[in-house]
Amino acid sequence: MSLMLAEIVAALGGELCGDSGLEIERLAPLESAGPSELSFLSNPRYRPQLASSRAGCVIVAEAMKAEALARGTCIVAADPYLYFARLTQLWKSRHASADGLRVHPSASIHPTAEIDPTATIGPLCVLERGARIGAGTVLKSRVTVGEGCVIGERCIVHAGVVIGADGFGFAQDRGVWVKIEQLGAVRIGNDVEIGANTCIDRGALGDTVIEDGVKLDNLIQIAHNVRIGAHTAIAACTGIAGSADIGAHCTIGGAAMIHGHITIVDRTFVSAGTFVGRSILQPGHYTGIFPMDENANWEKNAAAVRQLYRLRERIKALEKRE
Amino acid sequence: MSLMLAEIVAALGGELCGDSGLEIERLAPLESAGPSELSFLSNPRYRPQLASSRAGCVIVAEAMKAEALARGTCIVAADPYLYFARLTQLWKSRHASADGLRVHPSASIHPTAEIDPTATIGPLCVLERGARIGAGTVLKSRVTVGEGCVIGERCIVHAGVVIGADGFGFAQDRGVWVKIEQLGAVRIGNDVEIGANTCIDRGALGDTVIEDGVKLDNLIQIAHNVRIGAHTAIAACTGIAGSADIGAHCTIGGAAMIHGHITIVDRTFVSAGTFVGRSILQPGHYTGIFPMDENANWEKNAAAVRQLYRLRERIKALEKRE
Amino acid sequence: MSLMLAEIVAALGGELCGDSGLEIERLAPLESAGPSELSFLSNPRYRPQLASSRAGCVIVAEAMKAEALARGTCIVAADPYLYFARLTQLWKSRHASADGLRVHPSASIHPTAEIDPTATIGPLCVLERGARIGAGTVLKSRVTVGEGCVIGERCIVHAGVVIGADGFGFAQDRGVWVKIEQLGAVRIGNDVEIGANTCIDRGALGDTVIEDGVKLDNLIQIAHNVRIGAHTAIAACTGIAGSADIGAHCTIGGAAMIHGHITIVDRTFVSAGTFVGRSILQPGHYTGIFPMDENANWEKNAAAVRQLYRLRERIKALEKRE
Repeated sequence: MSLMLAEIVAALGGELCGDSGLEIERLAPLESAGPSELSFLSNPRYRPQLASSRAGCVIVAEAMKAEALARGTCIVAADPYLYFARLTQLWKSRHASADGLRVHPSASIHPTAEIDPTATIGPLCVLERGARIGAGTVLKSRVTVGEGCVIGERCIVHAGVVIGADGFGFAQDRGVWVKIEQLGAVRIGNDVEIGANTCIDRGALGDTVIEDGVKLDNLIQIAHNVRIGAHTAIAACTGIAGSADIGAHCTIGGAAMIHGHITIVDRTFVSAGTFVGRSILQPGHYTGIFPMDENANWEKNAAAVRQLYRLRERIKALEKRE
Repeated sequence: MSLMLAEIVAALGGELCGDSGLEIERLAPLESAGPSELSFLSNPRYRPQLASSRAGCVIVAEAMKAEALARGTCIVAADPYLYFARLTQLWKSRHASADGLRVHPSASIHPTAEIDPTATIGPLCVLERGARIGAGTVLKSRVTVGEGCVIGERCIVHAGVVIGADGFGFAQDRGVWVKIEQLGAVRIGNDVEIGANTCIDRGALGDTVIEDGVKLDNLIQIAHNVRIGAHTAIAACTGIAGSADIGAHCTIGGAAMIHGHITIVDRTFVSAGTFVGRSILQPGHYTGIFPMDENANWEKNAAAVRQLYRLRERIKALEKRE
Repeated sequence: MSLMLAEIVAALGGELCGDSGLEIERLAPLESAGPSELSFLSNPRYRPQLASSRAGCVIVAEAMKAEALARGTCIVAADPYLYFARLTQLWKSRHASADGLRVHPSASIHPTAEIDPTATIGPLCVLERGARIGAGTVLKSRVTVGEGCVIGERCIVHAGVVIGADGFGFAQDRGVWVKIEQLGAVRIGNDVEIGANTCIDRGALGDTVIEDGVKLDNLIQIAHNVRIGAHTAIAACTGIAGSADIGAHCTIGGAAMIHGHITIVDRTFVSAGTFVGRSILQPGHYTGIFPMDENANWEKNAAAVRQLYRLRERIKALEKRE
């Protein structure tokens, strides 16, 4: 398992300064990389590690070139992190082991499901009636794609994902919940990645829609009739309630919780752990987290939070004294 | 795939005003429904959409009848949303495709498991020793029902659900965790629905109990020895810690977190995102969410939260000045 | 299914006071145990239940011996809860039913995976290329162990767990996410227990590491390159973001959320529902939860929270008046 620096630059571009014949055996972080390993410097915070790194080669930006050359071989690239991303892809493609099986024999596939001949269906997946899987898409092991659900091209769906379970919809009949059958499906665009054990429910009447380029981490819940705009990324453990409409190019931190029937505009950044209880109509960075403290302090402050509006009234009264 | 309005009213009741021979091809939301589609108006908020809707027929309450008739055919029902729920069920039952297989051959079923002949066990499910599945219950794909666990009648269990994994119980032995074997099981009543990838752990000594009519959304964690009272509904991503006792007819919002060993009385409503750290002994509506704000404001307010009890003391000092 | 008290004490030690020939048919909680059942008293809070318990025998500490004898047979042990834990293990081992199959035929196992002959692989598990499973480890049903991931000895991995899905890593290229292939793996030590549907992602370059004796509850997310120190226990629904470094002997409550790239020192206790947004460098007990209240009160306090830094300024102004 190795690649010569010359091969890397031939495939990905960038300016190679130093020994083009160097054989790279592994990609590694700056602080632990050795002479046959390749690393990168993207975040200026890690600049102090550059001089002391033993890496055989480091990918750097133009501004770091002199500093990098002073210690040895480097590749200069416009965006070192993006270059590194493409390098991991090159690395994986060169070292991947072809198992050959496009559709694993242990998968349970309904005869009406349509699978593009270039798609891969891993062990113990379930494709229900009329499910459709696009070109180049990979379902890892134990993925369920429900009746009538559609996944586009070049998607990656990790183990345990459930696409197209029923949305959570009930009417009340004198204290008893009456099921609303969920008659819609799930439509997933191209180049979408979905993390392990994430769930995307089918729509009640219309469809739940995940647009092109969306990236979903693990253990995320997407309720019925949600729409997630193109190229939005959502971190793990986030829940999105029914009919929420999330814009494109948003970033949503882990364990966020998005209320149902609200709208979030394009290019919004929601911090991890934040409960979004109302629509966000202006792009920006939004947060709502109770700050952590030593438990003894937290207890005192939490008690005060519960009297906060009374404190406000006391301040008002003091202000009127004069 | 269609139903005549006359057939619908014959099956579900309600007063049909207009063209009883109209062929309905699809159920659809008010704003997008076309002339061969049927919709409903339940929430008065959406009343402005009624006049402009192109729906072939709309289900409305008595109070909306005149308004609905002014635009075309309608069905008048006491509770339009409940009527719509029953209609989705009628629709699904008429258009369902019978696959014929009650127990999918890919399921792994212990010889001692008992499955009612009218139950359905989907692909790649696992039923361990002594598991019991009641009449009319449906396990979708990839559901695990652990040793000795019991599911009642007419339940729906979605893909990826794990019933009867070990509860999280350990004793300490000089810093090392010693496992407490979980000797109880899980007992689930009738008419329960359980969402995708939800987990219900077996009890330590006694059983974990889910009573009749409970509805659980996706990715919920129910710990050992929890009891959930009849007809309680719990939204996605909620966690309920060990031995919590949740009453009947409660509604618990998404991503709520219920502490262990506490009691919540019947007919309690817990908002999404709320941490319930103590028992709730009075029915009501309870909330605990840090309000979201623009990040810059949040930072200032969060800093102030950490000094809150000192602020309270400063107010007290000011009040004493006089 | 029964054990004589004499057998129990022979196996586990402790001082038996009373009828050593008593046949125990079940372990049960103090309040419900009957004459052929064995219970324990560990938490002094439950002391009032001791006198009235109908249990055939109760495990107690030395300090409770006289009180326990007054009501009947007891076993005196240094740590009754630990004794009880070991008793549940004895009970399970005596009453376990041997199914005989070490590797269930429905599991999908890559020919290069290495499984210790004493390990158990349950139904419908997936072991990818080069996965390694140590001696005595049990994978329950529907567990996925990804390419090159390693699990140590005597581990228990519950249903639906996904080990070694890709970490969530992307670079940006003009608004489009470019995948960073995840080239590391997951390494899990000995005596680790992992709850149902929990996910542990593979590292980007290095490995994600779970050290010996760690206990993870259900539906936990462990991101790429996280390290969890030995004998740390983490409750359900917790999320740990990328490259977080968690110490040994920590206890992390349910639905906590740990930020990426931070450090938590050994012997830290994080309350349930707490967002850990910065490193914890002093052991202690840390909390951050918005206190729950009746919704009407919460609304007033939440409104005040959003003006909190302005309230602080108003207090400062009042203080300057004099």
